[in-house]
Amino acid sequence: MADKICGVFAPVPTPFSGDGSIDENGWRKNLRMWSASPLDGIVIAGSNGELPFLNLEERVRLTKIAREEAEGRLFIMSGAHFAATEDAKRAAVELSKAGADGLLLLPPHYYKGKEEMLLRYFTDVADISPVPVFLYNMPANTGVDLSAELICEAAKHPNIKGIKDTSGNMTKLGYTALGTPDDFSVFGGTGNWFLAALSMGACGGTMAVSILFPRSCRMLYEAFLEGRLGEAVELQKRLLPVSDAITRRFSIPGLKYAMGAMGMTGGPCRRPLLPLPEKDARTLMSVIEASGLDEYEKWRGR
Amino acid sequence: MADKICGVFAPVPTPFSGDGSIDENGWRKNLRMWSASPLDGIVIAGSNGELPFLNLEERVRLTKIAREEAEGRLFIMSGAHFAATEDAKRAAVELSKAGADGLLLLPPHYYKGKEEMLLRYFTDVADISPVPVFLYNMPANTGVDLSAELICEAAKHPNIKGIKDTSGNMTKLGYTALGTPDDFSVFGGTGNWFLAALSMGACGGTMAVSILFPRSCRMLYEAFLEGRLGEAVELQKRLLPVSDAITRRFSIPGLKYAMGAMGMTGGPCRRPLLPLPEKDARTLMSVIEASGLDEYEKWRGR
Amino acid sequence: MADKICGVFAPVPTPFSGDGSIDENGWRKNLRMWSASPLDGIVIAGSNGELPFLNLEERVRLTKIAREEAEGRLFIMSGAHFAATEDAKRAAVELSKAGADGLLLLPPHYYKGKEEMLLRYFTDVADISPVPVFLYNMPANTGVDLSAELICEAAKHPNIKGIKDTSGNMTKLGYTALGTPDDFSVFGGTGNWFLAALSMGACGGTMAVSILFPRSCRMLYEAFLEGRLGEAVELQKRLLPVSDAITRRFSIPGLKYAMGAMGMTGGPCRRPLLPLPEKDARTLMSVIEASGLDEYEKWRGR
Amino acid sequence: MADKICGVFAPVPTPFSGDGSIDENGWRKNLRMWSASPLDGIVIAGSNGELPFLNLEERVRLTKIAREEAEGRLFIMSGAHFAATEDAKRAAVELSKAGADGLLLLPPHYYKGKEEMLLRYFTDVADISPVPVFLYNMPANTGVDLSAELICEAAKHPNIKGIKDTSGNMTKLGYTALGTPDDFSVFGGTGNWFLAALSMGACGGTMAVSILFPRSCRMLYEAFLEGRLGEAVELQKRLLPVSDAITRRFSIPGLKYAMGAMGMTGGPCRRPLLPLPEKDARTLMSVIEASGLDEYEKWRGR
Repeated sequence: MADKICGVFAPVPTPFSGDGSIDENGWRKNLRMWSASPLDGIVIAGSNGELPFLNLEERVRLTKIAREEAEGRLFIMSGAHFAATEDAKRAAVELSKAGADGLLLLPPHYYKGKEEMLLRYFTDVADISPVPVFLYNMPANTGVDLSAELICEAAKHPNIKGIKDTSGNMTKLGYTALGTPDDFSVFGGTGNWFLAALSMGACGGTMAVSILFPRSCRMLYEAFLEGRLGEAVELQKRLLPVSDAITRRFSIPGLKYAMGAMGMTGGPCRRPLLPLPEKDARTLMSVIEASGLDEYEKWRGR
Repeated sequence: MADKICGVFAPVPTPFSGDGSIDENGWRKNLRMWSASPLDGIVIAGSNGELPFLNLEERVRLTKIAREEAEGRLFIMSGAHFAATEDAKRAAVELSKAGADGLLLLPPHYYKGKEEMLLRYFTDVADISPVPVFLYNMPANTGVDLSAELICEAAKHPNIKGIKDTSGNMTKLGYTALGTPDDFSVFGGTGNWFLAALSMGACGGTMAVSILFPRSCRMLYEAFLEGRLGEAVELQKRLLPVSDAITRRFSIPGLKYAMGAMGMTGGPCRRPLLPLPEKDARTLMSVIEASGLDEYEKWRGR
Repeated sequence: MADKICGVFAPVPTPFSGDGSIDENGWRKNLRMWSASPLDGIVIAGSNGELPFLNLEERVRLTKIAREEAEGRLFIMSGAHFAATEDAKRAAVELSKAGADGLLLLPPHYYKGKEEMLLRYFTDVADISPVPVFLYNMPANTGVDLSAELICEAAKHPNIKGIKDTSGNMTKLGYTALGTPDDFSVFGGTGNWFLAALSMGACGGTMAVSILFPRSCRMLYEAFLEGRLGEAVELQKRLLPVSDAITRRFSIPGLKYAMGAMGMTGGPCRRPLLPLPEKDARTLMSVIEASGLDEYEKWRGR
Repeated sequence: MADKICGVFAPVPTPFSGDGSIDENGWRKNLRMWSASPLDGIVIAGSNGELPFLNLEERVRLTKIAREEAEGRLFIMSGAHFAATEDAKRAAVELSKAGADGLLLLPPHYYKGKEEMLLRYFTDVADISPVPVFLYNMPANTGVDLSAELICEAAKHPNIKGIKDTSGNMTKLGYTALGTPDDFSVFGGTGNWFLAALSMGACGGTMAVSILFPRSCRMLYEAFLEGRLGEAVELQKRLLPVSDAITRRFSIPGLKYAMGAMGMTGGPCRRPLLPLPEKDARTLMSVIEASGLDEYEKWRGR
């Protein structure tokens, strides 16, 4: 199982210029920072990446640039979901060509169909994809919550190699870890409960907070692996309020705001997402400061 | 209020060929049937039209053809929703140019934001749209349920002229009818409870069952307007099981199957939607036969 | 079907004294008013009656007094639900002895079991009950939503004679009316959408607003039966905001407040229910005044 | 903080005889087993104890007997919830007199009121209770999900000393642990994710699986405290399927069946709960055997 994908992944935002186009310079700058950080990989065109607003050409461009800037230092996972199966299949091929090491794949969700429909969509894409496919369970956004049974069934496909599960359902996470092959990667989908996910059998996490505090996340991960539980619990306590603030509470506008405040390129979201109100920005920054996580992130100064 | 939009609207499917491309001949054939029917209008690129699978070019083409075939006989409403505001604005302009008389507009729904975000999206599109905008509340598919307060607020915009509400929430429907201007059209969004919607103040319905049984729906509508309540109740009883079968129970594959069986062009759905299992097809057809609605649809033979 | 139970039923509150005991004088006074009103019946120990706070002895006493005051003028339905089947069976026997003409029966709901459990509970009680049992679907309070299939199955029992459905699901209401025997009573469970329920096949309603405005509710009912649709629609429009204010918005404390303001005995609720804040009381009374329903209620002055 | 309540608590069922009365001999037998086990405490008249079916007299009797059999060896927590505040207050007093060391208290839940109502109910009972009160968050059964904000607010009361949270919401659990005093006990409410709860800051668990496998649960707890993470993760993996089988999957009938099979007194549930179907019993027992947890439970043979 030498090639099982594990560790800390950052689901990164897409930086836009004031006119709504992709800010390529900002993207390159961020990629260089992440490449220098302890991150294991990044997720492009996930929820933080504003995937519903990105067409295939834009996702391909983001992926190509990531390959140029980060090759060999970061595992690059690109979001291949489109509503129609044929569009997702085309994305799988194009994103792989552009340099993606793996693909993240939401289930179909506008039409709430049977599990058979979801499974078929996943395997249709996995059949054609040159690189491994990672399922993406995101019920808060999609209204579809993949069952442990479905995930374990999908995991039998030789090219479906993992899942990012944001449901927060620890029972599901535990059954998923128990019922999938040893080289299938179960990722917790938020830093709010990274340690809890690891304790239920996850082998890593993809989480927004690792964009801001990659070393803190890696430290928690390593403390868990090495049995330094007190340290892991303490880090989790500090990560929770920050993680929650840039996801559930203030969402992508909050995350981008914090990135800007911490030396990365954040910038505006595409509409309909609205800018972070100033009052929320102040709350957010005070949560970040109170966490004291900055002390672990000396790599930034390097 | 001479120009208030009322009556029976059919949210029509998009016919596809075996290779997944739009079946233009089938589309023209269907349009000619609907033009000859008692329908007041059609909705293109709504949920039945597989809107998440249609790009703007395809929606424009469908609208143009509808204009050619049905001009003057059907009000043409085209689905302008795209996830990004800029894409929806572009769609509003292009679909109007192509001949749409009005636009149907889902709220943003992948990111579950505040009502402010929804309202801003609606007004951003309505500001630029050359033709009136009709909101589309479809919580079963989107996970977003527009409140009566939001709808009434949006209705203050001079270019937002109605709503299709499928929520089935009669309290909301009643408050919406009470709290919007007299020329704002409140449509019930399914034939399952068309008469209930009318009784709460709706001025019409957009409903899949009117594709198959347009005259039955118009008869119910007229019976309501003219106070022939016994007839209206009887028609509603007959419509319910058919309407429910081609929506909640068997969805678009069921609707398309029934269309094929009744002389229209149904055809396959785009993946990930799967064909109707044969067993379901038999159930569906027996529900349709049992309804006895065919006796009201003599126009077909004309 | 001479004995099918139809019409307008008031789910009445239980008046309490300041010390939390039942206010018998207030109860008698209210019963005399309802007996003089156009109401067809009352529901004792339903949700408005604070059923979870009433033991069997109290329900029996309320029922006995109702029998004394209202015999022959009101159909008396008493709430027989207790969590344990044996307790509900005992209640069925005792309440019948005390004078109940029928029983209202919630499903078991703390433990969310299979439909088999719900059905068995209903039939266990119906088997032993000397008077007919009416099911009570109240998902907002119980978290259990009876399916149309279950209701139709239960309706096969010779002693299960109706349902009060507050779900607001018109599809369910329609299927229930279609799938139950002719002498099975389907009641809409709120005045918010009484006319909609009638249009889907209901034969009456049990609704809080009929406590305050019994004649308005009867007028709507009769207008529906006699095909005066304009009048029915107009009455529904006026009833909606009042009905909604004393149920969803301000709940039992609001209902009791309004009763007090309109010459009936309202009084405090048992804790944990809290008194209506003064600000809400003002809003509530302005909604009632704005409705103009008072003009239909001249019987009060008699 | 010498007296903070921590560790492994068993939410135990109430054994009934065939006629539905409490099986006192069975109850004593079980109590003697639990007293000899590594359990830290038991919860009487919780969800597993069929609390909605137990009147106060029965709860008092169960508590008195527990005191006789287990005094000094088990912390005795008794369920004091009744729907009406006055009834819950009386229960608090009587159960304390009967020997309860603490009380478990569900929120009011039939009427879905504001948080103010919930808070007031909790503090009204805590004000009068001679022993500490532990909140009980059980949204799957009650439909009410206590927010972290509410829990932290309630924790300011000097006599509210902990919470059993079954929501499975790790974000809430983490915020609760962060926002309550050091001597406030946060218990995870199921063995499905005991280790995850500990990792988020819980100081113990109350969980059905500890009735069957108390030592396995204590071993996990101690492995966590002592940083033997590999062992803790392994135990969690084994506990999950058993815990899930006797709660979510097969519920109290399953739990009681397994108790009977393992030398304790299980017996029937009160109606409306139905006996475990034989097929489910076989599945359940095979899950238990497959877990291999028996090897850790040698104390039973002592």
